[in-house]
Amino acid sequence: MFIAVIGSGRCSREVSRLAEDVGQKLAERGAILVCGGLGGVMEAACRGAKRAGGLTVGILPGNSHHEANPYVDVPIVTGMGEARNVILVRTAQAIIAVGGGYGTLSEIAHALKMGKPVIGLGTWQLAKEGREVKDILLASTPSEAVDKALSLAREGGERR
Amino acid sequence: MFIAVIGSGRCSREVSRLAEDVGQKLAERGAILVCGGLGGVMEAACRGAKRAGGLTVGILPGNSHHEANPYVDVPIVTGMGEARNVILVRTAQAIIAVGGGYGTLSEIAHALKMGKPVIGLGTWQLAKEGREVKDILLASTPSEAVDKALSLAREGGERR
Amino acid sequence: MFIAVIGSGRCSREVSRLAEDVGQKLAERGAILVCGGLGGVMEAACRGAKRAGGLTVGILPGNSHHEANPYVDVPIVTGMGEARNVILVRTAQAIIAVGGGYGTLSEIAHALKMGKPVIGLGTWQLAKEGREVKDILLASTPSEAVDKALSLAREGGERR
Amino acid sequence: MFIAVIGSGRCSREVSRLAEDVGQKLAERGAILVCGGLGGVMEAACRGAKRAGGLTVGILPGNSHHEANPYVDVPIVTGMGEARNVILVRTAQAIIAVGGGYGTLSEIAHALKMGKPVIGLGTWQLAKEGREVKDILLASTPSEAVDKALSLAREGGERR
Repeated sequence: MFIAVIGSGRCSREVSRLAEDVGQKLAERGAILVCGGLGGVMEAACRGAKRAGGLTVGILPGNSHHEANPYVDVPIVTGMGEARNVILVRTAQAIIAVGGGYGTLSEIAHALKMGKPVIGLGTWQLAKEGREVKDILLASTPSEAVDKALSLAREGGERR
Repeated sequence: MFIAVIGSGRCSREVSRLAEDVGQKLAERGAILVCGGLGGVMEAACRGAKRAGGLTVGILPGNSHHEANPYVDVPIVTGMGEARNVILVRTAQAIIAVGGGYGTLSEIAHALKMGKPVIGLGTWQLAKEGREVKDILLASTPSEAVDKALSLAREGGERR
Repeated sequence: MFIAVIGSGRCSREVSRLAEDVGQKLAERGAILVCGGLGGVMEAACRGAKRAGGLTVGILPGNSHHEANPYVDVPIVTGMGEARNVILVRTAQAIIAVGGGYGTLSEIAHALKMGKPVIGLGTWQLAKEGREVKDILLASTPSEAVDKALSLAREGGERR
Repeated sequence: MFIAVIGSGRCSREVSRLAEDVGQKLAERGAILVCGGLGGVMEAACRGAKRAGGLTVGILPGNSHHEANPYVDVPIVTGMGEARNVILVRTAQAIIAVGGGYGTLSEIAHALKMGKPVIGLGTWQLAKEGREVKDILLASTPSEAVDKALSLAREGGERR
């Protein structure tokens, strides 16, 4: 099971703690963590996953594996800038968004376009024509986010 | 001046009329239209641009130029699926979103991440932590959208 | 008809003259020139095409249209580095290689993999297990290269 | 250490045995195997690596992890067709080519363009203007190929 954790390359302590907790719980449940490989939320999630002995994959935007954070086991060096967001989303069976800026919003949008489950912890809210669009599933704790991601990823796998 | 018109591959008559109008006005003002090259909003915008004698560029997701709508002059065949959205946004100096689904939302997000102006005609509304984020500039008519896009694209060019 | 002219970003005067001639003849025959948009062979081919009033498309590796040579009409800003070579090849119906380094070799290989005609003017020779592989069609002049490219591109179009 | 093994999706028994041997020896030496994730040479190399308890990464061209061969541990789903060849090459510190068609040739060319060491086992020979170009380092056995790849990858790492 490959689960993406997405979020900004810079973040507050609080968001960082959430991301670390998500990473740790994913690893404890046996999932492989996929992320953008840089700092902030990505680094915190990887650190959490490594603490629980998990495997971490970082899909990097630049040309060198040196830009990966120190907790990435498998750095994928795309050299494709923001287009790597699409690869990240395609590689995962479910996505957990923790906070996040416009890069994160692009990943949420790509995931919803591909029909993949997106779970949000303090992330974007979407609306169209004045009405809220509720395709991002809300979670209020890292545990809840991980539970939802794993059960929806499993369902998605069975449907296919 | 390259301006992107983004929106869904399928759309209502009303949205189609808006997109066609946007395309026509862009061409009348001498801008080159960039879009995703497929149907719906993309086709309507290209049809409008061609009616005014403009040049149209379609950045296609698939492997063949045959998927381009009949009003595309320059089909770019990326073979990269949704990652072509990033190329489309990078190629344009400003973006006009007309209606739109999740593909459109991904393009809006990529554009805002790159610091490019995004003008919206009946498109997504964004919020974070309960507060609206107003980086998509609203327009109420195609003329207003085109005016804003051209003047912001020009400013952006001067700043650089 | 979209024909790619590929070759190095730096080249000798002689190679530059060949590329310019190829570009001019393509434009005279009504073909649209597609290239990587930078200097050397790419710039020479675009200059030739513009002299004959043709349209030129430059598929750029970097993040800004400012890296395009001054003879590019339609700069496509991919931000994808060398992966833009694949887009260039997919967009063209035939490829003319003039001289060239390893970037050019990658484009030749991608084109042959896709089954697209490749015409060579002083470019790479390929062999496997000691035997020459003759899939690159040799031309001894720009005119011959352009003739072959156009007639093979036309045939390819009819077969499809 | 990430080493790429590249070659065709279909191959003879003999080439398959070579690739399997290369994969096994890489894993025995502690390297992580990166490949295109499909059949033929890619599958054989992964099978060899798994027999020795190694980790395997498959960078897939299509939209689903289901296209990965059964010996891929970490499937990266790019959805970018042949452009994934560039990612594969960027991710590895050295490349071993076993046999190979035009896809393989494109990867060799991208690697040489990036200045990465390429070791060949019965693969392409290159020439320009009638003279052989000897940038592909020849190996006559899987052991020799793996030795060369690892020592050159290490050197490259130290230079940077």
